[in-house]
Amino acid sequence: TMLGRVLCTVLLVGALPSPAGASQGHISVILLGATGDLAKKYLWQGLFQLYRDQVSSGHSFTFHGGALAALEPGQRLMFDVLKKLSCPPDEPPDRCAVLKDQFLKLSQYHQLKTAENYTALNREIETLLSQEGLEEAGRIFYFSVPPFAYTEIAGHINGSCRPRAGAWLRVVLEKPFGHDLPSAQQLAAQLAGFFREEEMYRVDHYLGKQAVAHILPFRDQNRQFLDPIWNRHHVERVEVVLKETVDAKGRTSFYEQYGVIRDVLQNHLTEALLFLIMELPANVSSAQEVVQHKLQALQALWGLQRSSAVLGQYQAYDSQVQEELPEARGRVSTTPTFAGVLIHSHSLRWEGVPFLLTSGKALDERVGYARVLFRNRAYCPQSGTLRDAGHSQCKPKQIIFYFGHGALNTPAVLVSRNLFQPAMPKDSWKEAGARSDLHIFGQPLSDFYMYSPVKERDAYSVLISHIYHGRKDFFITTESLLASWAFWTPLLDSTSRLAPRLYPGGVENQQLLDFEMVAGGVEFSLAEPAELLHPGGQMPSEFRAIQSQFRQSPLVSAWPEELIARLASDMEAAAVQSVARSGQFHLALSGGSSPVGLFQRLARHHHSFPWQHSHMWLADERCVPLTDGESNFQGLQRHLLQHVRVPYLNIHPMPVHLNRRLCVEEDGGAELYAQDIAALVANASFDLVLLGVGTDGHTASLFPRSEHGLEGAPTVVLTESPVKPHQRMSLSLPLINRARQVFVLVLGRGKHDITTLLSRVGREPHKWPISGVSPSSGQLVWYVDYEALLG
Amino acid sequence: TMLGRVLCTVLLVGALPSPAGASQGHISVILLGATGDLAKKYLWQGLFQLYRDQVSSGHSFTFHGGALAALEPGQRLMFDVLKKLSCPPDEPPDRCAVLKDQFLKLSQYHQLKTAENYTALNREIETLLSQEGLEEAGRIFYFSVPPFAYTEIAGHINGSCRPRAGAWLRVVLEKPFGHDLPSAQQLAAQLAGFFREEEMYRVDHYLGKQAVAHILPFRDQNRQFLDPIWNRHHVERVEVVLKETVDAKGRTSFYEQYGVIRDVLQNHLTEALLFLIMELPANVSSAQEVVQHKLQALQALWGLQRSSAVLGQYQAYDSQVQEELPEARGRVSTTPTFAGVLIHSHSLRWEGVPFLLTSGKALDERVGYARVLFRNRAYCPQSGTLRDAGHSQCKPKQIIFYFGHGALNTPAVLVSRNLFQPAMPKDSWKEAGARSDLHIFGQPLSDFYMYSPVKERDAYSVLISHIYHGRKDFFITTESLLASWAFWTPLLDSTSRLAPRLYPGGVENQQLLDFEMVAGGVEFSLAEPAELLHPGGQMPSEFRAIQSQFRQSPLVSAWPEELIARLASDMEAAAVQSVARSGQFHLALSGGSSPVGLFQRLARHHHSFPWQHSHMWLADERCVPLTDGESNFQGLQRHLLQHVRVPYLNIHPMPVHLNRRLCVEEDGGAELYAQDIAALVANASFDLVLLGVGTDGHTASLFPRSEHGLEGAPTVVLTESPVKPHQRMSLSLPLINRARQVFVLVLGRGKHDITTLLSRVGREPHKWPISGVSPSSGQLVWYVDYEALLG
Repeated sequence: TMLGRVLCTVLLVGALPSPAGASQGHISVILLGATGDLAKKYLWQGLFQLYRDQVSSGHSFTFHGGALAALEPGQRLMFDVLKKLSCPPDEPPDRCAVLKDQFLKLSQYHQLKTAENYTALNREIETLLSQEGLEEAGRIFYFSVPPFAYTEIAGHINGSCRPRAGAWLRVVLEKPFGHDLPSAQQLAAQLAGFFREEEMYRVDHYLGKQAVAHILPFRDQNRQFLDPIWNRHHVERVEVVLKETVDAKGRTSFYEQYGVIRDVLQNHLTEALLFLIMELPANVSSAQEVVQHKLQALQALWGLQRSSAVLGQYQAYDSQVQEELPEARGRVSTTPTFAGVLIHSHSLRWEGVPFLLTSGKALDERVGYARVLFRNRAYCPQSGTLRDAGHSQCKPKQIIFYFGHGALNTPAVLVSRNLFQPAMPKDSWKEAGARSDLHIFGQPLSDFYMYSPVKERDAYSVLISHIYHGRKDFFITTESLLASWAFWTPLLDSTSRLAPRLYPGGVENQQLLDFEMVAGGVEFSLAEPAELLHPGGQMPSEFRAIQSQFRQSPLVSAWPEELIARLASDMEAAAVQSVARSGQFHLALSGGSSPVGLFQRLARHHHSFPWQHSHMWLADERCVPLTDGESNFQGLQRHLLQHVRVPYLNIHPMPVHLNRRLCVEEDGGAELYAQDIAALVANASFDLVLLGVGTDGHTASLFPRSEHGLEGAPTVVLTESPVKPHQRMSLSLPLINRARQVFVLVLGRGKHDITTLLSRVGREPHKWPISGVSPSSGQLVWYVDYEALLG
Repeated sequence: TMLGRVLCTVLLVGALPSPAGASQGHISVILLGATGDLAKKYLWQGLFQLYRDQVSSGHSFTFHGGALAALEPGQRLMFDVLKKLSCPPDEPPDRCAVLKDQFLKLSQYHQLKTAENYTALNREIETLLSQEGLEEAGRIFYFSVPPFAYTEIAGHINGSCRPRAGAWLRVVLEKPFGHDLPSAQQLAAQLAGFFREEEMYRVDHYLGKQAVAHILPFRDQNRQFLDPIWNRHHVERVEVVLKETVDAKGRTSFYEQYGVIRDVLQNHLTEALLFLIMELPANVSSAQEVVQHKLQALQALWGLQRSSAVLGQYQAYDSQVQEELPEARGRVSTTPTFAGVLIHSHSLRWEGVPFLLTSGKALDERVGYARVLFRNRAYCPQSGTLRDAGHSQCKPKQIIFYFGHGALNTPAVLVSRNLFQPAMPKDSWKEAGARSDLHIFGQPLSDFYMYSPVKERDAYSVLISHIYHGRKDFFITTESLLASWAFWTPLLDSTSRLAPRLYPGGVENQQLLDFEMVAGGVEFSLAEPAELLHPGGQMPSEFRAIQSQFRQSPLVSAWPEELIARLASDMEAAAVQSVARSGQFHLALSGGSSPVGLFQRLARHHHSFPWQHSHMWLADERCVPLTDGESNFQGLQRHLLQHVRVPYLNIHPMPVHLNRRLCVEEDGGAELYAQDIAALVANASFDLVLLGVGTDGHTASLFPRSEHGLEGAPTVVLTESPVKPHQRMSLSLPLINRARQVFVLVLGRGKHDITTLLSRVGREPHKWPISGVSPSSGQLVWYVDYEALLG
């Protein structure tokens, strides 16, 4: 019967005005999960649209729905869906009827459960192609199935369903693509065993939304207006928002595993944001350039921390979970259904501009938008009423990509009239009529140039068309998927144990979810009202720093983030005090990975640090060129110095590279550094030395049983490390002990053993050099995180 | 008669409840210009207020009005004024009548014209003191006279009217204090010949306005709220505004010499701004700390340029000048009656925050205020109507010091309710009742905590009281006066020839005076409408850069500011191109004074310059320590590097200081630099070398008849300068000539002769090293300003 149907099809196709017949080759579209919700609602409709659009393209098509059900019930289910397919109003009803009839004849159900089923499907396609003498152009496999089924299906396709040589394979994957970086990496690795990168089309349906898809063309077509203002000097903030009124009822089994960040922020909102902030490629139609620039924009974002987000959960959520998930009984869900996240970029263009991503369920309205708000750069001397007349430069200026719903109830692009009249492609976007009764973002709609699509198109139709055209820039590459998870996973990890703020839902939320930017992060504006507190009781406070003694010196202990915040504050206080006393602050810093978080915190949060009066010294250095990634100085430069303003001559890298060679005794680098210290640091007494501890008890680059530096003169020494690079330069212990303050930072479970040991032993620098740190007339403070302290 | 009057007075004072009698000593107040406008309107009233306030202080007083008129008519004029003196409503009428009677008896008119008059005045005071057995506490001379009379009067006072030893002298001076830096310096020098600094009280009556005077106490009393937000991270802008409805009619003879910047901005608005932006001293009552911190704030401001201001003139002004000033006939006045000025600070606290100072005559309302507008740091998920309820964090946040007039018609301090409820001294400021009908800065008054003075006081009364109490922080010190003129004079000079925009006046101005911040400066938002163009015809455009040839190479010539703007743009273009080509940009810069303006322009305007990928080399250096003020590197560091983000390892100062000695041949500094260049700069070909020219034709540090560097190898050489410091290090001519581009900047009339000469001679590097610059395969461009080119 299939062959009969296909024959019939080919004849029909031939009967349509298709000049080239099927000369472009045959395309088989296989929709996996053909009777599921997504397929019913969007995908078949999208495939029908593709067929209508491409019926005269020269390609011939067959459409194969696959599911687990047996042939007979599956067929019935699928054709119930297909019968309801419709055309948009602008399609002549006659043509629609003919095309729908053809489409139904070209479509067939397959039970796709076992390897044999896939082999059979392949055989059917092969048979058709050879019997009809058709060239194969390619095959599209659309995975509308749960992710746990991905690898098995992928194996079947790769094993027995690949198209003939010369034809392409495109597999279309629907999210979720993992739930954190490791799981996404695992899934990506598995898929990479079956498909080549260019064969995979990961769908984020936001990239098919008309307002999102137009962000880049808009930026491209309005370069002349945007070039001068699309930067930190003019943009006050960027908001990407998806508000929903619905809640998760009936879907908690899915939602409980994901939560709002994985569901919406990691993908949809991030993608929209990246289109706004990426550097504009010379050619915005080049998929490769677009993908690459997007990735670079993502990589230029500062890492997220717990303080980067506020999280909420609508009050009814927990009881919905209890009802729907028997296994959750007795456990209090902390899954967030609302999130506000503050993101910063360290690119020159966007440095300091807040990007706010917000989404939630059970809010007061359904709306989505990406909004660029510009600073007011004007002063208008006329008083109020006069100033508001016309298109005053003192009114707010914004550009909004309105995804849909909300007050406008249509996708739209809005540009404040006091900005510029944008160039818009007339064939796809039309200027919307003035509806002066409406206000949007506090302004009457008449304050905007507003454009809506000439023809509203469903995101899936758009994306199916892009799959057909091979436009990979409308899909998520493996690299950018992993980069996105790498970006979001630290936030997910650090917030997983936090109780979200409860909110009543809808308009009742009032100002309960308002949040604001505070010290580089976000916080809810209002204190949590008592009556809404979590019924499951208080979470233990994790912010209480333990304060006591360690090796007879003060000890500060906390979780890492709080510990580093505290250490950074103490450093700033030391610096301020020192500058007040002597006009300068001489700081010696260690390398390694522990201080990276500290450097970043200092760079981002400590704007009042007296950098201008600080001298930056190294406590130790590896004998590699200063430009080497292994160089301690490089780490300091990358994570701190390039973000703050320390005068050039106050920066003192160790001279490990003299006369184009590394740490050669005769070059006298160590002596040179000691001379510099003697010349600039009063009494060779640093105001503050920051040290770490190695698992072997080393500190700076003073290793156990070192011949140099553990005793003797306060000087600078060359030492040998047991690990590569072996050669090091280091301040000597006596020099360190001249400091006014020494802070020792110890982070992580890996340091638990040495920490425990140090708590018991005395002063034995030859065994454990760190035990020899005891400033002769200064203060020593230990900063040890809970894991290092308690294991 | 005078003695009789004084005797009578002393008796009266004794009859009042003054426990200590006159034990605190006698104060003589001499008001010079006693029958002038200011005296009539404010000063006598202020002195009467002083008397009422201090009648029981233990001091005795006499008041001496002086003027040029003879005794009889002067006396009549003065007592006509005194008779009209009144008390505020809260003074009991009985007491007022008694005190006024006493005050009249203590007051006396003197003709003060000649030296003899002053000697006579002094004798009268001396006689009184000795006859009455009074200790002299001090003398106040209030100069309410035109500035041209200052020095003569000062000479008389100093010569014959100083108080007895042990008593103080306070001379009170009214603006104008000069009309630019040189004239202010001259006046200050003259006055310094007569008075010590602590004797001089220069009045800026804005410092006596209650809302201005409360800025510092407000900041002090609300430290806990303001400390975290009083900085560039939270403040969006600061506006200081004085709008007037009146015009200059009848006063053009004064106004024509001054204009709005000298009249209002240089003094009143600057002072109010400084109170807002200065670092808060630990003790705000310490006059010395306040004065010092204000001065530091002023010195931290970026210099003003022509582009820092927009200027306007109300349309009727010129004809008023023509009418009132016969000598102005036929000349078109360019005196501005409106100015908007953008000021930036390079302090860490305020970097990047725009300070907008605006004032004008013939505007639509009379109002003055200093306003700090905070950034919106919040995101409020509720939609519009809900968001606006209550004190949402998403509403604008501002703090306003309202000087008076305008909608409120009272001095006031306003704080947005979504900021904090301020601490205010209850005895002097009261919370104002809600007047919800009023809107101010686009918000209903109910959005603010608003405070007005318990007792409105005239600024002069306040200042006279401060003079009496010796509160020098309410007056302008010589140092800060000169610093203020040093700040404003470059703008006055650079705009003196510009035609201001004409505006019709009043509400008719509409949006004609709206201005906005563009590229570090300000511009009017609207193009100048043709019908308002200056009837006197176009000013010659000064922005047209001459483009032609000089020594067979391209020449760009313009006024200095435009020339430097053009050069900076060309440098950025070269950098962008080079980074696109090779990923790097190697720039070698010369020292000296010419490039300072260029460095500043690059630092302030070229935010897209690829600093991150630029390498900064020196074309030459003086053999001084790099920390020396004479070092070329220091200039580069101060004016450019500390403001941009060039990676540390991309900065290449010349190694003139090795082994703790300067440019010793054996230390091999020149060879080291040459090696660095060879190692990092492909082909030792700089992407751009920026050079200057000396009046002797030297360039970099290659001097006429130099033994090294004019020919031979492309290397780095030690040279000898004819001027100190003699020792130099320099790129050699052959090395310079390997560059891809060489730009030569020549500025100022002093370079006219060498420019002329160079236009005629050939290539003779031993005579004129600059003539040897001709990149072998690169491009040479000359940037020469009009004065250097045309003399």
